[in-house]
Amino acid sequence: MARQGRSGETKMEGELLALTYGAVVARVLKDYERTDEVNAQLDKMGYNIGVRIIDDFLAKNRHGRCKNMQETAEAIQSAFKQYINVQPQVGKWNDAQNSFSLTLDTNPLTSFVELPAELSRLYYCQLFCGIIRGALEMVQLETKVQIVADNLKGSNVTEIRISFVKKLVDALPVGED
Amino acid sequence: MARQGRSGETKMEGELLALTYGAVVARVLKDYERTDEVNAQLDKMGYNIGVRIIDDFLAKNRHGRCKNMQETAEAIQSAFKQYINVQPQVGKWNDAQNSFSLTLDTNPLTSFVELPAELSRLYYCQLFCGIIRGALEMVQLETKVQIVADNLKGSNVTEIRISFVKKLVDALPVGED
Repeated sequence: MARQGRSGETKMEGELLALTYGAVVARVLKDYERTDEVNAQLDKMGYNIGVRIIDDFLAKNRHGRCKNMQETAEAIQSAFKQYINVQPQVGKWNDAQNSFSLTLDTNPLTSFVELPAELSRLYYCQLFCGIIRGALEMVQLETKVQIVADNLKGSNVTEIRISFVKKLVDALPVGED
Repeated sequence: MARQGRSGETKMEGELLALTYGAVVARVLKDYERTDEVNAQLDKMGYNIGVRIIDDFLAKNRHGRCKNMQETAEAIQSAFKQYINVQPQVGKWNDAQNSFSLTLDTNPLTSFVELPAELSRLYYCQLFCGIIRGALEMVQLETKVQIVADNLKGSNVTEIRISFVKKLVDALPVGED
């Protein structure tokens, strides 16, 4: 693919992504009656993106295997910067150091968006959760990912909570540590 | 919207757009049986994006009213550069100078995509046509926009043909030329 040779140049403005994603959400809302089904579909769609985008991320960043959740958090932070040009803050670690929050001050997916009152249970940015979950699963980390603060519902940030569930050790190729 | 103040920085890599658009197309394919209906839906979705993104384009570029189709072609070329970081070639003008082609050597929307044989009549990138048509309609230009060469079907370029239909003079505010 020709453009992969020009990695430094493949940058673009985010409005088209925001509007294209808006079209996805509108279509899913048409297809499903219940808001929890819509959220699940957006999550699934994100998961399918995550399991593919991780290859692109690893190829471009030559990232070694993360040794702990802190390193994982930094890798996700850097991926956000790369793919949507937003640097989320990492914080709110639990005592066990296996659960943290990503906080986004600005959210490119929600440009142009206002949620009508009847969609108060929609997690518009659930796509992010699915992407993170899918990408981490490909590096043998099962996680729970959810939106805990939503800039479309009165919060001035988007906060995504990522919690370690388990290592998927069975999926490792024989011979790897 | 906070990020509009940082216009120079709002750049991102295109893979997320490609994968998000892939999710849109997959969903539309599920919803419609006939390929021409799918193409029409992608075009309509693009149209809805075009009528919104034109405001963003005009705000960022302080573009004066285009005097002829040559200037219109240059503006579209510059919009492609801005939103998907691809500079299409403008050419193949007809004698009347009101119909031309945009030729894209690389097509960020089709990263990761291979069309199965049974979708040979799908215009995967019909979204582009809709966007251009919608955006031009907002500046009082009715156009016909179609894909005439498709990099997913053996061509090594994507060629989009844009033909002037008429000026929508009635839509001009009273008092403007």
